[in-house]
Formats: sequence, structure tokens, C-alpha cells
Amino acid sequence: MSFYPGISLITLGVADVARARHFYERLGWRCSPASTPDVAFFKLNNIALALFGRQDLLSDAGFADADLSDTRLAVAQVEPQPGAAPAFSLSQNHGGTGAVDRALQEAVAAGGALLKTGQATSWGGYHGMVADPDGHVWEMAWNPHFPLAPDGTIDLPC
Amino acid sequence: MSFYPGISLITLGVADVARARHFYERLGWRCSPASTPDVAFFKLNNIALALFGRQDLLSDAGFADADLSDTRLAVAQVEPQPGAAPAFSLSQNHGGTGAVDRALQEAVAAGGALLKTGQATSWGGYHGMVADPDGHVWEMAWNPHFPLAPDGTIDLPC
Repeated sequence: MSFYPGISLITLGVADVARARHFYERLGWRCSPASTPDVAFFKLNNIALALFGRQDLLSDAGFADADLSDTRLAVAQVEPQPGAAPAFSLSQNHGGTGAVDRALQEAVAAGGALLKTGQATSWGGYHGMVADPDGHVWEMAWNPHFPLAPDGTIDLPC
Repeated sequence: MSFYPGISLITLGVADVARARHFYERLGWRCSPASTPDVAFFKLNNIALALFGRQDLLSDAGFADADLSDTRLAVAQVEPQPGAAPAFSLSQNHGGTGAVDRALQEAVAAGGALLKTGQATSWGGYHGMVADPDGHVWEMAWNPHFPLAPDGTIDLPC
């Protein structure tokens, strides 16, 4: 199997790398020395995070040269839409409802925008949502059904 | 630190959960029994992946109730734009150029759309890009600068 079940790095497209980097550094995250003015890398618990200019991301991903008449690319057209709603979210799980609330507060204090205050969920847990300065959505969650390792990795049934 | 440097789960917003699930299952990935018709979970190397209806994702993230006059949400408005270009990419790293090419081929065989064939990069590595059926971008990369664990985790300098 070549396309293995794993992710090595997630890249967020941002309007301004320095501004985006500042938000995550205000949370106490330490940027990797591999970073440059054009790209900021953070080593997370179990994956790497990159902040990269949104236009650079699009160019690098090959959209300029892709055959956009390919219907499989109907939702991935070449022009970025600044008003577009996000198509994904990043979740970080916590050990309880208090920790969820503290994480939401910390994100807001660092310059994030609260989307949803901490609240009980239909699936028996508790969560809230906050957006980073580029609108990327972070869910802070307590999920009693998924065992949680100290580094934030969750143990899905398999 | 409450908003810790880590991601537990990434959720991709999709048009059709069954179709999206089928793509990843054709790659040989096994869906977690925690999955339902509304959400598909995959346990990856080091993180969990969820496939969830795009509208459900937006509702769940609180966009319907968020104060959209908050300028920090300028790029995260309430109406999804189906033609929007992606604002992020997922990377999986490989041990060499041949493995990158095989992963791209495997993704196309499973129904993905090739964005960029495998090629040398400006940073001294090799990569190619492919989109899943919802346009989410996967980069397949060989990066000689980042040590690679057998499970795909990369070791950033820190």
C-alpha cells in the first residue's frame, strides 16, 4: 500500500505568514528552526503543522496547471474565494469540560474568534469551536467515548 | 497550556459521506466501527480522520450562530462556496521518489484527480499532488531534510 493511512504534515493556507505564526506563538507553541519568512513549521504531538501563503499553497498544489474541466475537481477550482466557509476542522481533545473551556479562552486571548461556546453535544460529550486569524476552525472537545493519550492522540476503535 | 500543540482529529467536509468513504476504502484503509452513515472515522498513523457532511460541519462549527461582523471571521463566512479553492493540504511523506509516484498512481486508481505529477521541488525533494473526490488536496512527498519514521511521522528540527 503506497497511499498509506497516515498524515505527516498539514498545511494551512494563510493571508500573512507572520500574523498567523504570531497567533500560534502566543499560545506558547515554539516554531521549528526549519521555518523561513515564507513558511512556519510547528512540531505538534504527532504531526507537523505548516503555515504557508494561501496563494503559494494553491500554486504549489498545481491548480494553475490542473485540468479544471475534470469534474472531480468541481469543488477545487483555481480561484480562491476569500469569503468561502472552511471545508475542514482540526480537533484537539481534552480530559474534561474545564480543560475545553480553558483552551477556548486561551485561543480567544491569543486573537482567535469564538464560534461556539463550550456546550454539551448530541453525542454525549462537550465541545466548543474557535477560529484562528485565517478562519481555520479548531474544535476543543471532551469525548468520553474515545480514550485519550497524554499527548492528545485519541484511540479510535478499530 | 490548555490549547496544546497537537491535533487529535481532522475532519474533512464532504458532499457525500458514502462516496468519500468509498474512496479511502478503495485505498485499503479500514473504517473504524465508530463510524455511522453520517460520519466515517479512520484511525491513521498518528491522528484520526473523520469524513462528515460539509453542511453538517458548518452547522456543528457554529457558523449559523457566530457573529459574522467580527472581522476575524472575514474568511469564514456562513455560506459555503462550492467553487472555493482549498485552504489547506494534507501531506504524507515517503522514503523515495518511486514511493511518491506509486502513491499518486494509487490515489488516481481509487478515483482521485491528479493535480501535479511527481517532480523535483525547489527545496531539494520530490513531490506530486492529488485531490480526493471532494477536492481535498493530498501532497505525496519525499523530503531528504526531514527524517521519516516508518509510520509516516516526520521529525522536524526543534
